[in-house]
Amino acid sequence: MDAIDLSHHLSPIAAARTPSPLKSLMKYMSVDGMISLSGGLPHPSLFPFVNIEAEVYSPGIYLPSNTSDSNSELLRFKIHKNGRANGQVVDLASGLQYAPTAGHPWLLQYVREFVRAVYQPAYKNYDVLMDDGSTDGWSKVVNLLCEPGDYILLEKYTFPSTQAMWVPMGYKGVALEMDVHGIRADGLEATLREWDTTHPGVKRPHVLYVIPTGQNPTGCTMSISRKQEIYDICVKYDIIIVEDDPYYILQFDSYKLPTIANGHAVPPPSYDETAFLDSLVKTFLSIDVQGRVIRLDTFSKTMAPGNRLGWFTCNPLFAERILRATEVTTQTPSGWSQSIISELLHAWGPGLGGYLRWLSGLQSQYEIRRNWMCDAIAKEFDAEQEGDKVIVYGKGTRVKLLSFVPPQAGMFLWCKVHLSENKEYNSLKGVFEEPEMAFEQKLWQEIVDAKVLISPGRFYAAWEGKDKPRNTAERDIVLYRLAFSMTTKDNVDLAIHRLAGVLHRSWELS
Amino acid sequence: MDAIDLSHHLSPIAAARTPSPLKSLMKYMSVDGMISLSGGLPHPSLFPFVNIEAEVYSPGIYLPSNTSDSNSELLRFKIHKNGRANGQVVDLASGLQYAPTAGHPWLLQYVREFVRAVYQPAYKNYDVLMDDGSTDGWSKVVNLLCEPGDYILLEKYTFPSTQAMWVPMGYKGVALEMDVHGIRADGLEATLREWDTTHPGVKRPHVLYVIPTGQNPTGCTMSISRKQEIYDICVKYDIIIVEDDPYYILQFDSYKLPTIANGHAVPPPSYDETAFLDSLVKTFLSIDVQGRVIRLDTFSKTMAPGNRLGWFTCNPLFAERILRATEVTTQTPSGWSQSIISELLHAWGPGLGGYLRWLSGLQSQYEIRRNWMCDAIAKEFDAEQEGDKVIVYGKGTRVKLLSFVPPQAGMFLWCKVHLSENKEYNSLKGVFEEPEMAFEQKLWQEIVDAKVLISPGRFYAAWEGKDKPRNTAERDIVLYRLAFSMTTKDNVDLAIHRLAGVLHRSWELS
Repeated sequence: MDAIDLSHHLSPIAAARTPSPLKSLMKYMSVDGMISLSGGLPHPSLFPFVNIEAEVYSPGIYLPSNTSDSNSELLRFKIHKNGRANGQVVDLASGLQYAPTAGHPWLLQYVREFVRAVYQPAYKNYDVLMDDGSTDGWSKVVNLLCEPGDYILLEKYTFPSTQAMWVPMGYKGVALEMDVHGIRADGLEATLREWDTTHPGVKRPHVLYVIPTGQNPTGCTMSISRKQEIYDICVKYDIIIVEDDPYYILQFDSYKLPTIANGHAVPPPSYDETAFLDSLVKTFLSIDVQGRVIRLDTFSKTMAPGNRLGWFTCNPLFAERILRATEVTTQTPSGWSQSIISELLHAWGPGLGGYLRWLSGLQSQYEIRRNWMCDAIAKEFDAEQEGDKVIVYGKGTRVKLLSFVPPQAGMFLWCKVHLSENKEYNSLKGVFEEPEMAFEQKLWQEIVDAKVLISPGRFYAAWEGKDKPRNTAERDIVLYRLAFSMTTKDNVDLAIHRLAGVLHRSWELS
Repeated sequence: MDAIDLSHHLSPIAAARTPSPLKSLMKYMSVDGMISLSGGLPHPSLFPFVNIEAEVYSPGIYLPSNTSDSNSELLRFKIHKNGRANGQVVDLASGLQYAPTAGHPWLLQYVREFVRAVYQPAYKNYDVLMDDGSTDGWSKVVNLLCEPGDYILLEKYTFPSTQAMWVPMGYKGVALEMDVHGIRADGLEATLREWDTTHPGVKRPHVLYVIPTGQNPTGCTMSISRKQEIYDICVKYDIIIVEDDPYYILQFDSYKLPTIANGHAVPPPSYDETAFLDSLVKTFLSIDVQGRVIRLDTFSKTMAPGNRLGWFTCNPLFAERILRATEVTTQTPSGWSQSIISELLHAWGPGLGGYLRWLSGLQSQYEIRRNWMCDAIAKEFDAEQEGDKVIVYGKGTRVKLLSFVPPQAGMFLWCKVHLSENKEYNSLKGVFEEPEMAFEQKLWQEIVDAKVLISPGRFYAAWEGKDKPRNTAERDIVLYRLAFSMTTKDNVDLAIHRLAGVLHRSWELS
């Protein structure tokens, strides 16, 4: 089954793009014996690079089941300027030349195979093209689909940088209610059903931006049944879904409070590719029978952000329009990033095998970090598991301070602070119209003074326009996002110890 | 002297950009002892790269005065993941992490020093920030300055991809007449002076896009006196000048027809840094006392296009607005490109010395290629020098076929074909309203059939809107662009031989 016609979603600018006339010469270049004097290409003999050699980890190095010496686990590959020795899949003469806008051919083919095997798109003629990471990807999607006056459907809390892209263009967000599984289907349906009543004369939104796995900032992961409900509504109301999924691979087992105070290790499972793939929640792409999902993937979290390398998966019409826009903006991702990632994936071959092993190991490493943080909280406070949630009381008290849903993916713990038993907060209630906002800033400053930097929840509120307040939290609640990705165990222990000190003092429990 | 206030040139979208709230946390990260749980950064221990090692040419390898064995001229540098051994200026742990939007600090400082030493900007508080190459740079400038309804001042012939950026936005070009020194000052002045008469009610253009050195496609280079004339007019009419100068360093001595038929070598000069710098034509930046020049530089022609790395030099207000736009689009150029280029420049140090030597050698290499092409034409036809021009006659005849100004910079030979003595062309005159267009395509096809690919001049005509014809050539003239950058001597000899065959047959001279 092929994608349906969704061309009416294109912005006027995206629809108006035409190929550069120089592209029409391309087909002649491959004619046998043709001498091209058409391209203004620098001569590769004049690139200063002769070769580069990389030393990299073996793909199994971070698997918990790996017990071998890590020093023996290094692999090497070399990229020569000319020719492709030892089965190299790229050389620097072509890898560092002007290159196809969609991406280096070998890499594109690899990524296409990854999409097929891991996401299993539900329609046939999907297309794949590289981008400069998902920030670049999203900016191109906004320009592809949106035009002045547009509203964009968003999770109630979302990544602020993606909003900073379109806020200056005058677009507005529509904040959608969330639960532990992400956007609520009933909320989305009601928003769309009642749109003409709530927004008379205003064009109904046609783009939904969603971070389905380990959502930033809430850490929640959307189940496949929720995705199906959302998808069906998007079909009914003709919505394009932008599935921005940088944390997709970082999916964890559910968290259980430790029975011993010094934490618990992840049990070392034996690696099994099929079991690994089966453990991953299905994507929007896997149920997208119409081609209305634009999926954004990135190597930022799986290889390194500095690669500035990711890819789009979408219907061929959208892909072609994005390609046209790419030609006149970024042209193509860095040839270094593409060449090095290509050779790394090749060295980890054959096929997807090595890369999937690497991803599985990475998953367990971030799961350990999630556990470090949750364990440290359990140690510094009194914590109890209550359904999906962990409820956190002042040490040796029944004063409820915090609650959170231990994330089953990603890098973030989204922490609710319960203020109703804080005397100082209660004293602000008569003084400020929004005492939560005032207290959030005060408490945040006290935490910073104790040398722990966390980010305030209000930063993540969906932007609904200047006239709409951005404090969307509940009564007597403030929110903070704690990232567990970038710490050592010692640092996270110390940070949570400091945080606990601040809270116990503020609640007058110490 | 600092830049004047030019904020009225900002597009509404550029003016409306705000920093992400997350940026407000940045200053706390450097507080001594702070533990940050604020950023969603992957942990660098989980980047798969341990180190890379590069083998590169020494900077003097391509100097004509270099007579040493090229094998002894290789340099090596290694970039470790952690720590900076042997004076490394970057490591992979930070080089591949999320990085400052303006660019890696060491590289930014290097480029700043290059700008100061080589371009000598005429005002004090200019700023420098990296981009993903000049296509990316130009797209950001268009978004910085332009809004619906805008007209952009352009060379009569210009690079089509830069137009493909803004044509879909409904902007229009204003084609400016050129001579051998580029845009004519009298034409620019007249266009602006008469604007309100020629375009009643339409906002006067406020952006001039110009490729001053080895212009694409015409190959011409603007002298400093012409730049000063153009600059003064831009001050008078409040125009922002975008100086897109990828071929700046590739400036050559003037071409003289060879006295012997098999061509001539470039005399090997002894390398002298001061003489090299003094030989370069001064930039718009060097006379920009007000900060109204945005200069685009790129490593594409000096290192390799695949780096996708270049930089803006402009006033601090524009730089800050471009930075805001970069945060939500490309974020920062590839960490691989920035790290490798940094270490290469460092290995070529100390200071700018090695890089300037490299550039000087590169210059002579492209000058040799320019000479190969001109020499081949002189060999296959009868050629005579006439002032700035070379006039080309059919071999052993006085039938004028071609004329061109041998380029003193860049990669392109812009070739006029004189049709008045072509019988077939003359027979088209009664049949077609634009016989030049018809004949250009026919002749181009014959040349392709002879297995030489060149690009038709009409591809490069400035876009002035759908209602304006794009055939701006003179009567009985067609134009082709021949790139000499990407060929070997054998190939260029063969290509020109084939081209000569086609022309002699078409003019019935053989």
